[in-house]
Amino acid sequence: MSTSRFADGAAYVRGRFVPMSEATLPVTDWGFTRSDVVYDVVHVFKGGFFRLEDHLDRFEYAMAGRRIRPPEDRDAIRAILHRCVALAGLSDAYVAMVASRGRPRVAGSRRPADCDNHLICYAIPWIDVIPKDVQERGAHVWIASTPRVPDASVDPTMKNYQWNDLTSGLLEAHDEGFDTALLCDAEGFLTEGPGFNVFIVKDGRVSTPDRGALHGITRRSVLELCEELGIEAAVEPIPRAALEDCDEVFLATTAGGVMPASRIGGRILGNDRPGPISARLKQVYWAKHEEGWHRTPVLPLDADEKAAAERAA
Amino acid sequence: MSTSRFADGAAYVRGRFVPMSEATLPVTDWGFTRSDVVYDVVHVFKGGFFRLEDHLDRFEYAMAGRRIRPPEDRDAIRAILHRCVALAGLSDAYVAMVASRGRPRVAGSRRPADCDNHLICYAIPWIDVIPKDVQERGAHVWIASTPRVPDASVDPTMKNYQWNDLTSGLLEAHDEGFDTALLCDAEGFLTEGPGFNVFIVKDGRVSTPDRGALHGITRRSVLELCEELGIEAAVEPIPRAALEDCDEVFLATTAGGVMPASRIGGRILGNDRPGPISARLKQVYWAKHEEGWHRTPVLPLDADEKAAAERAA
Repeated sequence: MSTSRFADGAAYVRGRFVPMSEATLPVTDWGFTRSDVVYDVVHVFKGGFFRLEDHLDRFEYAMAGRRIRPPEDRDAIRAILHRCVALAGLSDAYVAMVASRGRPRVAGSRRPADCDNHLICYAIPWIDVIPKDVQERGAHVWIASTPRVPDASVDPTMKNYQWNDLTSGLLEAHDEGFDTALLCDAEGFLTEGPGFNVFIVKDGRVSTPDRGALHGITRRSVLELCEELGIEAAVEPIPRAALEDCDEVFLATTAGGVMPASRIGGRILGNDRPGPISARLKQVYWAKHEEGWHRTPVLPLDADEKAAAERAA
Repeated sequence: MSTSRFADGAAYVRGRFVPMSEATLPVTDWGFTRSDVVYDVVHVFKGGFFRLEDHLDRFEYAMAGRRIRPPEDRDAIRAILHRCVALAGLSDAYVAMVASRGRPRVAGSRRPADCDNHLICYAIPWIDVIPKDVQERGAHVWIASTPRVPDASVDPTMKNYQWNDLTSGLLEAHDEGFDTALLCDAEGFLTEGPGFNVFIVKDGRVSTPDRGALHGITRRSVLELCEELGIEAAVEPIPRAALEDCDEVFLATTAGGVMPASRIGGRILGNDRPGPISARLKQVYWAKHEEGWHRTPVLPLDADEKAAAERAA
């Protein structure tokens, strides 16, 4: 069920369910003015969340690490995510959960501990980090000159909105006519790109960076698929030079799944098309979605929720 | 003049002047979800902006560097800042100008160039980064273990909201019972703290870090005052060890001015009170404000603006 009011998506802000056009935060919220915020994104595929509990685990890890504690507990957050998707009436969705530091209870305080932390959730139509047609031909990935922020300064495993280095890489990539970018750290090791993990394939072996990167849920799914398919896989340091002689490169993210690349920097991979292992992993990743892999069906609105949505429509 | 509607401050968002309670941005704005935003803050002291054109210069520099171009030009931004302060009826104010990437014009685009950049401005009652009573006794400053994000990854001279490393330092400082924190870079050189530049004084000579820090307008004012008062001053690399034998430490920011420290890490400076050069610079900084130094009087509302504010009240 969907009402026109929620056609663009449904959100939960300040304890209320609202259409996306009303999903806002104050310009003085520290989630904005200090980017003092953690988040997670889970996707819904044909009416089911994918690895919902894994995303909730990671969201709770990030909240604990940054000491941001909204009033809603895990059960409440889970229920809110279900209700946002149901209100929006989406069978394929991009579903975000965001915990912000908020604003000080004490006027003028500059202490994080004085703030009212708060939760924002929303379900909107599915977004691909890389458009589907680009995924088909293989993404063209620029190797950015901007170094990734070191893990010691900002821990990338606590999913955050501090994208400045990633955005710099993206601007470079677009200037050069590429689709997206990959960042190395200051020591020259591969890290990640704007919104995705990276994998390389060499002689049938798959690897992904052990540093400077989110512990992606899609990354984990890829590692599980490799095990299932009998493909050797590792999480390890990957020097930039490995891009010069690897056979394939692919990207992995919730908002897109397994996304093969066909060009990396100046180099054209294979036959300028997605490589065979990348294509196989992409195919199996989605085929297993169809089979209900790690699936949690989205709960329909109950009678009260339905009545509330209809009154608001 | 002030109306109750603007008692908490006045803002400009989406091309309209609104009370602070209506100053919001969408939760999907990239200024939030990617911290893809630059800003500046100018203060108003007894009815006059301090160094308004210098702040506008720096704001334009940051917007150009991040390629964020709201529709309003410099003259329009200046006029909006005046009007926000006048609407709020504040004689002492914290006045922010913020340029956000905004959201894509093309649904689903992940390209910064596809976004509608927009301007947010607001004037709210004066905020001190360090409370006035703490400034009197001298701030207790913790030396954080979190390293400052390197300049190569995120350029600190383009004033931004990516405070994660600074917030980590602040949390450490509060855990240790200190007022605020100072961050070093990974090579062990002093940089800045959450919202301020730092200066040290040794044998009558003043110095401030040349890296990892905003080119603060108050920092520039301090350097000018030193020249005027015949105090030797330098912008240079300052190793962390310099804190062990310096005579004084003070902090500098728009939202507080010159703020002496009395403790730094485990060390008590001088007689656990602000040092003489710090105190002198603080005193002269404010005395010169009284004399109209770098002052631009806030323009009153014109007849049309006044009528509009009264209609809205």
